[in-house]
Amino acid sequence: MRAACFVLTSLIIGGLGACKPKNAGNAVSGNAAEKTYVAPGKYDEYYNFVSGGFSGQLSVYGLPSGRLLRVIPVFSLDPEKGWGFSEETKPMLNTSHGFTPWDDLHHVQLSKTKGDNDGRWVFVNGNNTPRLARIDLSTFRTAEILELPNSGGNHSSPFITENTEYVVAGTRFSVPMDDADGDVPINTYKKNFKGTLSFVSVNPQSGNMDIAFQIETPGVNFDLSRAGKGPSHGWFFFSCYNTEQANTLLEVNASKNDKDFVMAVNWKKAEEYVKAGKGKKVNTKYMHNVFDESTHTATSETKNNVIVLDAKELKDICYFIPCPKSPHGIDVDPTGQYMVGSGKLAALIPVFSFDKMIKAIEKKDFEGDFAGIPVIKYESALYGEVDKPGLGPLHTEFDGRGNAITTMFVSSEIVKWNIKDLKVIDRQPTFYSPGHLMIPGGDAIHPEGKYVVSYNKITKDRYLPTGPELSQSAQLFDISGDKMQLILDYPTIGEPHYAQAIKADKVTGKSVKIFKIEENKHPYVAKGESDTKVTREGNKVHVRMTTIRSHLTPDNIEGIRMGDEVYFHVTNLEQDWDVPHGFAIKGANNGELLVMPGETTTLKWVPDRVGIFPIYCTDFCSALHQEMSGYVRVSPAGSNVPLTFSTGTNLPAE
Amino acid sequence: MRAACFVLTSLIIGGLGACKPKNAGNAVSGNAAEKTYVAPGKYDEYYNFVSGGFSGQLSVYGLPSGRLLRVIPVFSLDPEKGWGFSEETKPMLNTSHGFTPWDDLHHVQLSKTKGDNDGRWVFVNGNNTPRLARIDLSTFRTAEILELPNSGGNHSSPFITENTEYVVAGTRFSVPMDDADGDVPINTYKKNFKGTLSFVSVNPQSGNMDIAFQIETPGVNFDLSRAGKGPSHGWFFFSCYNTEQANTLLEVNASKNDKDFVMAVNWKKAEEYVKAGKGKKVNTKYMHNVFDESTHTATSETKNNVIVLDAKELKDICYFIPCPKSPHGIDVDPTGQYMVGSGKLAALIPVFSFDKMIKAIEKKDFEGDFAGIPVIKYESALYGEVDKPGLGPLHTEFDGRGNAITTMFVSSEIVKWNIKDLKVIDRQPTFYSPGHLMIPGGDAIHPEGKYVVSYNKITKDRYLPTGPELSQSAQLFDISGDKMQLILDYPTIGEPHYAQAIKADKVTGKSVKIFKIEENKHPYVAKGESDTKVTREGNKVHVRMTTIRSHLTPDNIEGIRMGDEVYFHVTNLEQDWDVPHGFAIKGANNGELLVMPGETTTLKWVPDRVGIFPIYCTDFCSALHQEMSGYVRVSPAGSNVPLTFSTGTNLPAE
Repeated sequence: MRAACFVLTSLIIGGLGACKPKNAGNAVSGNAAEKTYVAPGKYDEYYNFVSGGFSGQLSVYGLPSGRLLRVIPVFSLDPEKGWGFSEETKPMLNTSHGFTPWDDLHHVQLSKTKGDNDGRWVFVNGNNTPRLARIDLSTFRTAEILELPNSGGNHSSPFITENTEYVVAGTRFSVPMDDADGDVPINTYKKNFKGTLSFVSVNPQSGNMDIAFQIETPGVNFDLSRAGKGPSHGWFFFSCYNTEQANTLLEVNASKNDKDFVMAVNWKKAEEYVKAGKGKKVNTKYMHNVFDESTHTATSETKNNVIVLDAKELKDICYFIPCPKSPHGIDVDPTGQYMVGSGKLAALIPVFSFDKMIKAIEKKDFEGDFAGIPVIKYESALYGEVDKPGLGPLHTEFDGRGNAITTMFVSSEIVKWNIKDLKVIDRQPTFYSPGHLMIPGGDAIHPEGKYVVSYNKITKDRYLPTGPELSQSAQLFDISGDKMQLILDYPTIGEPHYAQAIKADKVTGKSVKIFKIEENKHPYVAKGESDTKVTREGNKVHVRMTTIRSHLTPDNIEGIRMGDEVYFHVTNLEQDWDVPHGFAIKGANNGELLVMPGETTTLKWVPDRVGIFPIYCTDFCSALHQEMSGYVRVSPAGSNVPLTFSTGTNLPAE
Repeated sequence: MRAACFVLTSLIIGGLGACKPKNAGNAVSGNAAEKTYVAPGKYDEYYNFVSGGFSGQLSVYGLPSGRLLRVIPVFSLDPEKGWGFSEETKPMLNTSHGFTPWDDLHHVQLSKTKGDNDGRWVFVNGNNTPRLARIDLSTFRTAEILELPNSGGNHSSPFITENTEYVVAGTRFSVPMDDADGDVPINTYKKNFKGTLSFVSVNPQSGNMDIAFQIETPGVNFDLSRAGKGPSHGWFFFSCYNTEQANTLLEVNASKNDKDFVMAVNWKKAEEYVKAGKGKKVNTKYMHNVFDESTHTATSETKNNVIVLDAKELKDICYFIPCPKSPHGIDVDPTGQYMVGSGKLAALIPVFSFDKMIKAIEKKDFEGDFAGIPVIKYESALYGEVDKPGLGPLHTEFDGRGNAITTMFVSSEIVKWNIKDLKVIDRQPTFYSPGHLMIPGGDAIHPEGKYVVSYNKITKDRYLPTGPELSQSAQLFDISGDKMQLILDYPTIGEPHYAQAIKADKVTGKSVKIFKIEENKHPYVAKGESDTKVTREGNKVHVRMTTIRSHLTPDNIEGIRMGDEVYFHVTNLEQDWDVPHGFAIKGANNGELLVMPGETTTLKWVPDRVGIFPIYCTDFCSALHQEMSGYVRVSPAGSNVPLTFSTGTNLPAE
């Protein structure tokens, strides 16, 4: 078994060898510098939202410059922002497993209206501890995180429907349902392990998410997914691998079948079944965390029960379409008529026709069933095949001019082909091993086919070496002409799985610059220095503190005792853009705060010793920033030092 | 008091108003794009090591492209790298306060030989929980972290001597000494609060740090520091503010004196006193954490006692030089003859002469003493003043052609002036409010005066908006000609305090690309798949796991029970550059692992429920990466399910 596995491995990774010559492919024409240069004071044309992969965060780049504008913390602790360190943000990282300081963020979806990006929200998925998150593009902050029960490896997510009706999530790793007998042997996979497809509704005004229903499927691995649009609106398509239903050495055991499947899901029909009470209630437990910008505080709610539809009982909501081989991406063209399956072990790309699929379903043109779910005949759903497009096709986006561009992982290239005649038009090498690719609006009804970015899995010699660990790499191509032109390499944070981009002017108009202090509803806000105070409730000490250039109020606190829990509630009184203040106290069990203008943020601190602890502003805010500091005195337990606080009033006699 | 403070505040920040016109200063000449463009496949000319400020990490940029090549985790948890999550790296974040998940990293110093950057190590300082760290430039990883006792706010650090004999650290916030009575009222500052200057020796071969001695000083705030060089080698210079010795509302109370001080320290003389036994042993407790790349594991050691010299008793090691007003930067020119003090509230820049200072000391040309330390007469040490250079001078670097460039925080500009005649040559606006600046080698004996970068404190409208929180901003100027030319804006991670840059070829030759598996001495390494095993020691289960494209061995584990602590020791068997593997298990109390080729890294996991837990590789490594997964089964406490593990051998009958 192991020998076989090594042979297969070398076949799969062998393609890399061909693309390793140092500094190969540097034929960059003379105008590339001008095309990517954004002069000081000028703005990038696009926001590029890039998955941080194993970092768990979302990065925002400007295009065409490739400059990193901001890392938005989502699923992981972020010391730069205090995310997961402050009392207000800690609840955002709660799951049913407890405080979860990390996840693996995979895909990015801009909210859509009528099939085009509307610039309201970005949805992302947590792969390891299955979750969905929504980022608000008025604040560029994470507004909501929803855990998904009955799930393992939330990979085929967070793809959305034409009007953001639903965000979906499919299980990459099938697991026993949450209400099953918990102690299940792994080798009973075929019997006991189930896939689920979650349909999460999105409130059209607030954006708030809720699990509308799940569909239970046989145990396979769902990889990626895309909604139908236009004529195919109402359907969702999921790629599946491991239809061998192996539970070990998938490298070999899940690579046996010549064809796996794309699953077509009629979600409009599923909605009807839910309304008709055809779902069963499955008892489970999952967390829903919401960040409220009126209090600047997150709350976690534990939810129970989800409605689950059974795909094999309700025969007309799920259909399998055979797809060669171990399909990774499944992408729907701008017309909504064509579904492109990218089988990573296939030497061709099948393009399925939505109309043919519907006809095949109507005629029950099935080759049989898989675990009780009808399998449409391959030819009956097929529009045609792109022949020999390259090795290792993974993902496809669309340029809005009738063409598709597909990444080829093994042959390290992007390949442009025509959707109508399925002929290859152009191919350009990438460095190296591209995974996802992105055209602004490339999954929408109206793609803007000016650029494509290839997000590569191997970096090797593209940048100055940084030891064993290298950043990952993106490559920007100009695709406005017939030939795709490589114009920029830019490194990325974490692992750039999918990314999306949107014209800046669809976002900038609604950007929040400060939080209005008069609207701050934090329970411990101090709206001015006269509101500051220090109060004791048993062993809990609450410090209502304010920051403004260039002092903390109070800046001297005495009467803290060993055994106390101290809560520094820090309100930033500034009402001017880009004047955050930070707060830190010397010690161990805390992090820091970074407080935006008008916001209140809380640091919990448990003193570990008697002594004097400096406090200070951690974000250089003015010429007197260095003076923005003070001291906290901690006395022994039982001390009778009174609780006092001051700013500027207890100077020693001079 | 508060009214006075607001008046002062508005004066200090008022200068900003003048530099806010949107997209001002965009006069970029036509060749700027070409000057900053690094074509795909080409390399940047310089590594730029940039402080992450409140992020606690160190960022590595390429220049002139401004591309972020890597974030090196130092003082804070980093979910992208698993830093502080793995068992091997957790000890690096230990301090005497316990596990410390965050710090505020301020300054950057490349190691030096004969006064020039040698490309071996980068030293950085932790400001909040006073520490020093050393990064090894062969691996770009943090090799060592040393805590500093008797300290608060380690700001004037980690500046180094000509041959990296010492890294220094001075206290920004004076505090009582660690062996003092712990419960000290804050308003006894003048009597009880002390400053210390730590001299940390660096082993010339290994780089290992040790506290050689500390110098106890009166309670003031040490801000920045620089070593002498050439003729002034053997001396160190520290800027001090708050010579008013205020402990509250420093904004007002520490801004009263027209002159504060630069402290000149004769460290060669201090060495002699230490050798002669003139130091006292102060009992304290501090941590020393070292990462050993043979085991790929950190260990923490608690140390006690430091040798402390008393500056006021040993009259000839410390001298104050008056310096107008609240000096921030103190910088020594390439010849070692001139010390430039930048008083942030001063309207001039004093340039002190080393020779004159020595003569004044010899002649005891003092104006008196401050808290027992001699104060040299201002004029006796002064070479001359740069008159009206701009508002709010903060820091100065040198171009190697006889010129200095100084940042002006309040008037938002960088100003070039001649060291000999002290005349201003050029000034260019910056956007906005520059803090530190950096010329490659700009603090060395041979600066490379091709570029200067201004690291700005205010970003405002320089990039596409990202809500209330903006990245900070760097601006690259070409200074090869007479006029400084702004050629690039690039955003930065966290807060870029100081930065340094080095020609790439001084680093790349020694870059480690993989760790040799045969040299791996981790106690739980598996050097091949035949070494993998799962063993139980009471409630501790140790999994020796391997990763190689594209499988985990083992990938099915049963017999884990509730109440167990599971240690996944994951060895990456790859021996090829840029093929890391990741590891994650669904659950709560863990993060992830990212394992470099040849390395072993451990994730501790305490199961929270009975059930099936997927495991998988989190770093896309091959076309069959998606198949690189498995399952762990957790049974109830007391279960008799035997401990079994397998890869590919327990397939269900098909």
